[in-house]
Amino acid sequence: MFNTIGIITKREDITSEETARELGAFLKELGVLLVEDEKAIEKSADLIIVVGGDGSILSSARTYVDSNIPILGINLGRLGFLADVSVESMMTVVSDILSGEYIKEERALLSCQVERDGKILSQHLAFNEVVVHRNETPRMIEFELFVDGDFVNKQRADGMIVTTPTGSTAYALSSGGPIMHPSVNTICLVSISPHTMSHRPFILHGESEVLISLIDSDDKATVSFDGQASFSILLGDSLRVRQHDNFIHLIHPKGYDYFKIIRSKLHWGHKV
Amino acid sequence: MFNTIGIITKREDITSEETARELGAFLKELGVLLVEDEKAIEKSADLIIVVGGDGSILSSARTYVDSNIPILGINLGRLGFLADVSVESMMTVVSDILSGEYIKEERALLSCQVERDGKILSQHLAFNEVVVHRNETPRMIEFELFVDGDFVNKQRADGMIVTTPTGSTAYALSSGGPIMHPSVNTICLVSISPHTMSHRPFILHGESEVLISLIDSDDKATVSFDGQASFSILLGDSLRVRQHDNFIHLIHPKGYDYFKIIRSKLHWGHKV
Amino acid sequence: MFNTIGIITKREDITSEETARELGAFLKELGVLLVEDEKAIEKSADLIIVVGGDGSILSSARTYVDSNIPILGINLGRLGFLADVSVESMMTVVSDILSGEYIKEERALLSCQVERDGKILSQHLAFNEVVVHRNETPRMIEFELFVDGDFVNKQRADGMIVTTPTGSTAYALSSGGPIMHPSVNTICLVSISPHTMSHRPFILHGESEVLISLIDSDDKATVSFDGQASFSILLGDSLRVRQHDNFIHLIHPKGYDYFKIIRSKLHWGHKV
Amino acid sequence: MFNTIGIITKREDITSEETARELGAFLKELGVLLVEDEKAIEKSADLIIVVGGDGSILSSARTYVDSNIPILGINLGRLGFLADVSVESMMTVVSDILSGEYIKEERALLSCQVERDGKILSQHLAFNEVVVHRNETPRMIEFELFVDGDFVNKQRADGMIVTTPTGSTAYALSSGGPIMHPSVNTICLVSISPHTMSHRPFILHGESEVLISLIDSDDKATVSFDGQASFSILLGDSLRVRQHDNFIHLIHPKGYDYFKIIRSKLHWGHKV
Repeated sequence: MFNTIGIITKREDITSEETARELGAFLKELGVLLVEDEKAIEKSADLIIVVGGDGSILSSARTYVDSNIPILGINLGRLGFLADVSVESMMTVVSDILSGEYIKEERALLSCQVERDGKILSQHLAFNEVVVHRNETPRMIEFELFVDGDFVNKQRADGMIVTTPTGSTAYALSSGGPIMHPSVNTICLVSISPHTMSHRPFILHGESEVLISLIDSDDKATVSFDGQASFSILLGDSLRVRQHDNFIHLIHPKGYDYFKIIRSKLHWGHKV
Repeated sequence: MFNTIGIITKREDITSEETARELGAFLKELGVLLVEDEKAIEKSADLIIVVGGDGSILSSARTYVDSNIPILGINLGRLGFLADVSVESMMTVVSDILSGEYIKEERALLSCQVERDGKILSQHLAFNEVVVHRNETPRMIEFELFVDGDFVNKQRADGMIVTTPTGSTAYALSSGGPIMHPSVNTICLVSISPHTMSHRPFILHGESEVLISLIDSDDKATVSFDGQASFSILLGDSLRVRQHDNFIHLIHPKGYDYFKIIRSKLHWGHKV
Repeated sequence: MFNTIGIITKREDITSEETARELGAFLKELGVLLVEDEKAIEKSADLIIVVGGDGSILSSARTYVDSNIPILGINLGRLGFLADVSVESMMTVVSDILSGEYIKEERALLSCQVERDGKILSQHLAFNEVVVHRNETPRMIEFELFVDGDFVNKQRADGMIVTTPTGSTAYALSSGGPIMHPSVNTICLVSISPHTMSHRPFILHGESEVLISLIDSDDKATVSFDGQASFSILLGDSLRVRQHDNFIHLIHPKGYDYFKIIRSKLHWGHKV
Repeated sequence: MFNTIGIITKREDITSEETARELGAFLKELGVLLVEDEKAIEKSADLIIVVGGDGSILSSARTYVDSNIPILGINLGRLGFLADVSVESMMTVVSDILSGEYIKEERALLSCQVERDGKILSQHLAFNEVVVHRNETPRMIEFELFVDGDFVNKQRADGMIVTTPTGSTAYALSSGGPIMHPSVNTICLVSISPHTMSHRPFILHGESEVLISLIDSDDKATVSFDGQASFSILLGDSLRVRQHDNFIHLIHPKGYDYFKIIRSKLHWGHKV
């Protein structure tokens, strides 16, 4: 089923490279063709294995989403929400997966564009969330929020998070957002330190288009994508966000249990 | 389009009855056939007009959901989330609706059953939310939570709310739940005063089946539906909740703007 | 320094009784006089040792606060906020304490009275918190809140918590209250599932007098003290709360570290 | 009682200047001596009247706290928490105050210093709050928190607020902090979007010394004082905060009602 596999390592991380080498050797023995550089992966891989952590998967997801190649994550350290295969079990899990025993799951990304004077300044993808945030100036930013062209409200806050279900257990959780099961077709808006006390996390339909328009700020504000890339915006600029057309196909080992992972990550009491 | 209309009034409310009489006279002049008792409405009405408030609509929704008759709400007092037509504008709005100018929207209900020793004790519908709550004993209840048969967690709390998107602006909001746009196909779980600090509102797919099993409590606990009906449960009893098969078809006047209503109800600042 | 000690056990708890017997034998060897029944303890004890858990200390604190006898807590199970001496270390700790090596700390209690038609119906003490809470009826209660005779607000909620700093890590924490260091001279009001979104925990001066007046409720409401005793109130009844005149003198082993206990209980990451 | 008054206006604000001129003329007629520049005010004023808003009072408070001159605030726009006299009523109120009819209230400030390698880099006062906050980099900062030299915890968050009771209704409220009555002798710590879900606002004794030590950050972080002044800090720098020795003496008109102001500002329902 998976004959050509691209292995992606964490940049400048020796453990990741060594683990990838071991895994690669094992895969070759099983008769799998390995591909390495981005072009080759996009052209011929039918599975991507990311050896790193949730952060590495975020990055690979944004790079390869339009190639529609499924992604499996090996976590080097602690169990991740996305990288849910340990180094210890990776040989067994990968064997199972090659023999067709795995769970496949679709996850949405956000397609974001920054606009100025009606023109598109830049385009970005986000797998977890996109955030508009004030800079080091202590004053809140002020923005208008629109959903599908309809005015929702004007807010003063430190910032605004637009999150996917995948991102709901990341930064949005720190700012008071709810947990969204990966299967829901939704986008969630979470205000960061909002001035008005009746603002609450807002769950929108996954097909909604969100527009955030910066109407006041001492200087610039920053838009960041998955906490990895940043873009500076000015007064009057807008951020337009909608679900990306293509989805990520995450591969999980058989027996994958989302609730077990979340119990472990959030330290919920286990069943006695 | 709507030839036979059932008008429902708020029990023992003179204003509601007088308003209904006025509206009825107006409808008759327009050639509409009026029906009054439950049987007749279920059999022949193609529109239900509720003259009351959000509470009256909750009740009518549970009664008539399986007859698939659209519902329009006239609010006697303040603007409601569901009853969004004022008495002042009702003649105009109803005329518009009869000539086909209106917005129709589907809303989900919850189908709930209380189980003891594998047997169904009772069945209920909820349009806003179903709540398991401790009684007057000051001790928290303890329950296990399952989604689609999978164990989620064990919680100690004052209670647990299972809410529809419609209910997300009602009791769930007071307990810290997010706002869910009516168009999302989700169910939300909100713990009431949970003992564990990492419990957060949990957004599930609308097709999920939720099971809450009471494993500890000083005495009984209470399950309530839309804050209107209550049922007493014992240790070992379970509450099973899933989306009801039939949906409510809410009728709104043309120009209906969900965000405008929510801005008004939650006192968000308006656009200048 | 401490010549006469009263040992208090957890009712009908064999482990507590055995531990108390062991400790008693040890104390006798050290020449300490032991007293057992309430009267004798009140009359002659200069130290009370509670062998149980935080719950047992709450109860002893309410019983003995006006005798001004210091209290030391041995926890039978997990480390408590109040019972901070383990069974394993109790001999060593008690020896140290008898030779004067300990930390003494004052903790406030709440003096509460329920009033009807200007008359006092009943009086209670609370070491953690006093709570006014709706009964099993699903409707919120409505009450007016006064501080030192000044009207604060009218609230609709599931209930209202009045907590001491000691109680701030108990039930109030589950309902969204802040943590109050034991040294602060404050009382905190925490609304439970308040209808109005701009209600927040309210920190008052320790000398404030709080009055909560029940102005609406479907039936009765319940007032509970430390989650251990309950009292039923009716529409029009009031709960008056102020700091009790006498304080509890908690005895801690030398090296007592409040922040270490709270890190452990709330699972905060430790210093690396 | 108040013979020499310093009037302070909002910089480059014509309304403030005109109002001040009117008020000045009125005061002169009453035989009051007016002083204008900072030196003269510090030397001889026995009352400062700030014509502006809460922001202007924050700034004057920091400037004049060590001169121990009482401050009265005239608000030009909406009612403030601190500037609680309207332009319409100012003549009457000021007359009353000159004849001894007023309420005087003490408010604490925070004395803050930034330290690097054991040396004091800079010193600042804050009347509302001091905030350590990440810059435009999307990554959280990491810091260790100490109270009176004792380690409390290590946190990853967007930032940390140290607030006075006065500041509890300002920025801290947006980040989930409790309301503190002005009479309490406390400092409150509020984490901004903390990574760990069991962090909660922490109420400390007013005499506590707080130390926040930056141990990780992508680049610099920013410390801001009352949202008005900022200071850039580096990895390893610390912020030391304690209550300032001198207090602000706020003058309120007779009949001053703190709860009425807070009801109005937070839109709580009024008593019927």
